[in-house]
Amino acid sequence: MDWLDSVKWGDDGLVPAIAQEATTGDVLMVAWMNREALAETARRGEAVYWSRSRQRLWHKGEESGHVQTVHELRLDCDADVILMKVTQTGHEPGIACHTGRHSCFFRRYEGGAWQTVEPVLKDPESIYK
Amino acid sequence: MDWLDSVKWGDDGLVPAIAQEATTGDVLMVAWMNREALAETARRGEAVYWSRSRQRLWHKGEESGHVQTVHELRLDCDADVILMKVTQTGHEPGIACHTGRHSCFFRRYEGGAWQTVEPVLKDPESIYK
Repeated sequence: MDWLDSVKWGDDGLVPAIAQEATTGDVLMVAWMNREALAETARRGEAVYWSRSRQRLWHKGEESGHVQTVHELRLDCDADVILMKVTQTGHEPGIACHTGRHSCFFRRYEGGAWQTVEPVLKDPESIYK
Repeated sequence: MDWLDSVKWGDDGLVPAIAQEATTGDVLMVAWMNREALAETARRGEAVYWSRSRQRLWHKGEESGHVQTVHELRLDCDADVILMKVTQTGHEPGIACHTGRHSCFFRRYEGGAWQTVEPVLKDPESIYK
């Protein structure tokens, strides 16, 4: 059986994929993959997602240069979530978020509200030119 | 605006929620939350998910005793994924997976296939009695 057939793709053909920084363990982002995106990720050794907004394959870093090198791919017990160990390239420290922050998870629940607790490392306007 | 209204719930009213072990950074599992599950998680300080298979709130550990203490809740830039920093209680080392393993992500892609690379720490039959 093909390893891609082992994945339980959702009704929309997608599963969530987590990018976790290999060195720090930081969860950088979650995006979506279809079968082709996962196959491409394994082939290239770089994260390729399915962009739901643009409805096309999205080689992370194609515009920003912030490519994610993939060291390891994991599948969960229900076979419907992918976990990747990555190196976030293109900036030091790595910028995974389109807001110019290290991680997309920059809001923390505090005092009954979501508070932004991570700094912008680079102006997004200078990332996407 | 209510912090729960800031979350972009999917068409099914759900968002993925990642449980990450606070001490090790290990990604333990991903499950789903609806509005009530997230509110309950914050209120209790313990992970409460929405079980899609059982179509009801699922207080993690209600059967196994493997409760997840929640130290921190984060929201991503698109406001459609939750990240929790947790302590996986009930066993040492923590068992998050219903298969009796530490993490649900126990399969690694190697040589064209998913290989099981993490041991069973406790027989599931003795966990769910």
